[in-house]
Amino acid sequence: MVEVEDTYCEAFSGIYTRLIVTAKYKYLLEKAVYSATALPSTVFGESEAGVERWLSPEETPDGRVGAVIQIWVPKTKKFMDVLLREMGKRIRQGILVVPTTRVFNACEGEKIDVEINVGRCGDGYEWFEERWGREVIVVPIMFGEFVIERYIGYAEGVAGGNIWYFCESEESALEVGERAVEALKDVDGVITPFDVCSAGSKPETKFPEIGPTTNHPYCPSLKGKIPDSKVPEGVKAIPEIVINGVSLEAVKEAMKVCIEVGMNVDGVVKISAGNYGGKLGKYKIYLRELI
Amino acid sequence: MVEVEDTYCEAFSGIYTRLIVTAKYKYLLEKAVYSATALPSTVFGESEAGVERWLSPEETPDGRVGAVIQIWVPKTKKFMDVLLREMGKRIRQGILVVPTTRVFNACEGEKIDVEINVGRCGDGYEWFEERWGREVIVVPIMFGEFVIERYIGYAEGVAGGNIWYFCESEESALEVGERAVEALKDVDGVITPFDVCSAGSKPETKFPEIGPTTNHPYCPSLKGKIPDSKVPEGVKAIPEIVINGVSLEAVKEAMKVCIEVGMNVDGVVKISAGNYGGKLGKYKIYLRELI
Amino acid sequence: MVEVEDTYCEAFSGIYTRLIVTAKYKYLLEKAVYSATALPSTVFGESEAGVERWLSPEETPDGRVGAVIQIWVPKTKKFMDVLLREMGKRIRQGILVVPTTRVFNACEGEKIDVEINVGRCGDGYEWFEERWGREVIVVPIMFGEFVIERYIGYAEGVAGGNIWYFCESEESALEVGERAVEALKDVDGVITPFDVCSAGSKPETKFPEIGPTTNHPYCPSLKGKIPDSKVPEGVKAIPEIVINGVSLEAVKEAMKVCIEVGMNVDGVVKISAGNYGGKLGKYKIYLRELI
Amino acid sequence: MVEVEDTYCEAFSGIYTRLIVTAKYKYLLEKAVYSATALPSTVFGESEAGVERWLSPEETPDGRVGAVIQIWVPKTKKFMDVLLREMGKRIRQGILVVPTTRVFNACEGEKIDVEINVGRCGDGYEWFEERWGREVIVVPIMFGEFVIERYIGYAEGVAGGNIWYFCESEESALEVGERAVEALKDVDGVITPFDVCSAGSKPETKFPEIGPTTNHPYCPSLKGKIPDSKVPEGVKAIPEIVINGVSLEAVKEAMKVCIEVGMNVDGVVKISAGNYGGKLGKYKIYLRELI
Repeated sequence: MVEVEDTYCEAFSGIYTRLIVTAKYKYLLEKAVYSATALPSTVFGESEAGVERWLSPEETPDGRVGAVIQIWVPKTKKFMDVLLREMGKRIRQGILVVPTTRVFNACEGEKIDVEINVGRCGDGYEWFEERWGREVIVVPIMFGEFVIERYIGYAEGVAGGNIWYFCESEESALEVGERAVEALKDVDGVITPFDVCSAGSKPETKFPEIGPTTNHPYCPSLKGKIPDSKVPEGVKAIPEIVINGVSLEAVKEAMKVCIEVGMNVDGVVKISAGNYGGKLGKYKIYLRELI
Repeated sequence: MVEVEDTYCEAFSGIYTRLIVTAKYKYLLEKAVYSATALPSTVFGESEAGVERWLSPEETPDGRVGAVIQIWVPKTKKFMDVLLREMGKRIRQGILVVPTTRVFNACEGEKIDVEINVGRCGDGYEWFEERWGREVIVVPIMFGEFVIERYIGYAEGVAGGNIWYFCESEESALEVGERAVEALKDVDGVITPFDVCSAGSKPETKFPEIGPTTNHPYCPSLKGKIPDSKVPEGVKAIPEIVINGVSLEAVKEAMKVCIEVGMNVDGVVKISAGNYGGKLGKYKIYLRELI
Repeated sequence: MVEVEDTYCEAFSGIYTRLIVTAKYKYLLEKAVYSATALPSTVFGESEAGVERWLSPEETPDGRVGAVIQIWVPKTKKFMDVLLREMGKRIRQGILVVPTTRVFNACEGEKIDVEINVGRCGDGYEWFEERWGREVIVVPIMFGEFVIERYIGYAEGVAGGNIWYFCESEESALEVGERAVEALKDVDGVITPFDVCSAGSKPETKFPEIGPTTNHPYCPSLKGKIPDSKVPEGVKAIPEIVINGVSLEAVKEAMKVCIEVGMNVDGVVKISAGNYGGKLGKYKIYLRELI
Repeated sequence: MVEVEDTYCEAFSGIYTRLIVTAKYKYLLEKAVYSATALPSTVFGESEAGVERWLSPEETPDGRVGAVIQIWVPKTKKFMDVLLREMGKRIRQGILVVPTTRVFNACEGEKIDVEINVGRCGDGYEWFEERWGREVIVVPIMFGEFVIERYIGYAEGVAGGNIWYFCESEESALEVGERAVEALKDVDGVITPFDVCSAGSKPETKFPEIGPTTNHPYCPSLKGKIPDSKVPEGVKAIPEIVINGVSLEAVKEAMKVCIEVGMNVDGVVKISAGNYGGKLGKYKIYLRELI
């Protein structure tokens, strides 16, 4: 029986946008989507992103293959500046540059007129029209045209939900991590910006200029070398699944699925989660309430 | 016969670092490499990157599957700040977070001690040692350890080399673009940060705050709507291959290969390149000198 | 508006088995599944197969990543010999040889004791036991063990359902074909053994020893060269989607989805289907009844 | 230090053909190539196949992306019948059915006029012409045309070369196996029909009708249960790399590379190879001669 530690994960308010990306062929869709959601860089003052779900042609506005992605920025006073910039960057440098792509809104809530941060790539030669029942901006590009829905929503969600798996080997760590990420593809409204994350962090650090640093008490390779190690005997790897979701319920559901997955993988000895003593995050999600 | 326009591409000085990334399994290597080289964002004041070549286990320092990647920043007075930051970001958020990865130097030239911008992720718990004949930093992480060679080189190279293909259809545009990108995998020292790029830009713009905007005279969908279109009759798509290389010779060789590839694809009617009237870049590479 | 031809597709009775395949990591699952379902060779007296759907760890008996696949043989008097042989071949040479794989039954109906055609690979060293609530055969192999559920079902279904898309270019043909195959991943009980098939056949031939040959009246490159061409003006490519399903309803539903997909792709001018004058197949599915 | 057992691998004469496959886009190439080389079924009286190497557009006859593949049948008196059938099957059902593919000869030696076993798929509507300096058969198909070089060579090579890795865990077994398969992509003239094979076999069996059965003395899960186990203490998985090559030298070179790879993977405790007491194969390759 796998132990579920009596602890909680600390999660944060974040601002997200949620998009449908489509393309002519699946290989182009994958290129655009993986690029646009790569490099989770919130700790660099930027953003993080992920694929929520792949869509069949029957599920997209333009009948092509597609995917739902989310882009997240921290909820700060100036979040709108960061959101405009980061959404613009991920859409323009990740999607628009890939041939045949289009972007549609998939987020209820307040709307942004993305003419400002995306449409103007057209240098004023872009235009508005209605297609597939949506108002879109058509940006002329050298390959043809890039189409994006004009009004894209954003909303407040919950970021930084997480599950830790204490594992006896790299092998079981990869297996449980990958299974969890796959299982979450069936949970609505959530992404895993790092997928199977190899490097959990703590907020306090000796080098503030470098950003969050390694969570040293939970590093198996420090066991026996430091006085404050919290790695149990026999544990060799502790992968983390970071979860962002459109609501607290979505994140809780995702964590519940992660716990279930972890219960059934050989080599997982304990399931836990990361918190910062409750000082940082708005939300506390107790693991034992999820079982 | 495909016409090669009598023009030149304008290229720039850039600063690059060149790394070998390795991982335990190929799927983990691909995840790390695609993430670390995604989102070419030089126009956002950040960096761009690409895969130069995949490596067999016989070709890597640690005998695992690997790849050579390059990360580029513009050559400005403050390039070192940007390079440290961007190299740190792409290595930490793209590679270190993926289980089992390691990073080695593959760049001659001046060296950076990456203890500063990567090693300290270990919060001082990292240590130095020699492995595979190289001095490395071992960063303890929750998954186990992340290993990076301590001294990573950087050098000046040539960025923004490019080839444009004037094509009769999206189809021929995708085909020639993809073929060119594949062919360049056999040219030493070059990357294609955008692969098949759908959106060439021009420097002048009505909206300076958005950065480079669409190269409107070369947008097929504007033909007949604007007075200054330069799109020939029958041309429907103009993909661009952007090329960065470790030397002018490498970029020229790559452009030569791109021209050869373009000569042999049905539906390509003209091969050209982008320049800014020679006002911006240090280098002019004349296409007809390459044939 | 895309024309739907007033014709029918002729389909056949076939015998299928339906399996769940699981593996430790997704890349191993994909290797096993793509291999086991490759090479549709019914015309060589063998079998055809396909992926019905990918499964989340929450949907598989052993909690690992998985997929539902189907293997089909023609319904002849001796179908059982062919089924035993072909199921054995595809499981042993496609799945068992890939590390960490397992196979479970996903088919109601008559059961085969696969000790005969798979289990005995263990040379008598295999054994039976109950795992995950199912009776399984454990076959010791050099990598560890291969596990297969002991009783695997088979049933009669409908094979050879099909849709043809008359397209103005290769490009639109690839696009509509790929979209249809993707859309069918959401239809229960069906596979597309050829995915986007480039080569439809007819039963009559000058060279009976070679098996079914090209459906020459529908070859665009013969238009103008033969008297009996049925390719409309402007049609350059006619991809076929072949559909096998567990019931007539499943095949009809899949064809309906294919028609809907085809209605929305630029460059598709007509949707049709293949038949042999009603002489060969048990089933006639009229396209216009599906709209 | 990893022990290399003082033994030999027993290899066999086989007949192979060697082809270049090309396609318009890489995703279509991969689909064709993986399908045409899947399901190694020599033990079913059929054939086995593999990818030797991926080709850049600069390396293929038609300037498209490509790959070199090999198809193998056993050298028996009736090998020509089997070769014609199996080559026909793998080309027609694996490659021809995938849109935009072409096949060229890459084998010196005796030639087969594949009009007989492939061309006639055109039902007599196919024709001959010269393209890219080669005589080809153009087979009209519904998608457009399939092109195959008319004369395809075959030759005698060496099949069944192999290396076994005795590993302490599944993890190290997957790692060493995958590394070896990747490393062999750089060795000319060889394929690995099973890639990382989980199930080595022995010729003698209690159930001759099922074909070769598990090599029980080398099954880790039988250790302690049977009297004749040859699995050393602590060994949990023994993956096999099967190697076919165009010459004895090529196979030896490949085995040498496999040994080198195995020397450098943690968890590999012994490197060995399979033989049948020298009774079956024409060739004996002693491991210690390769170091």
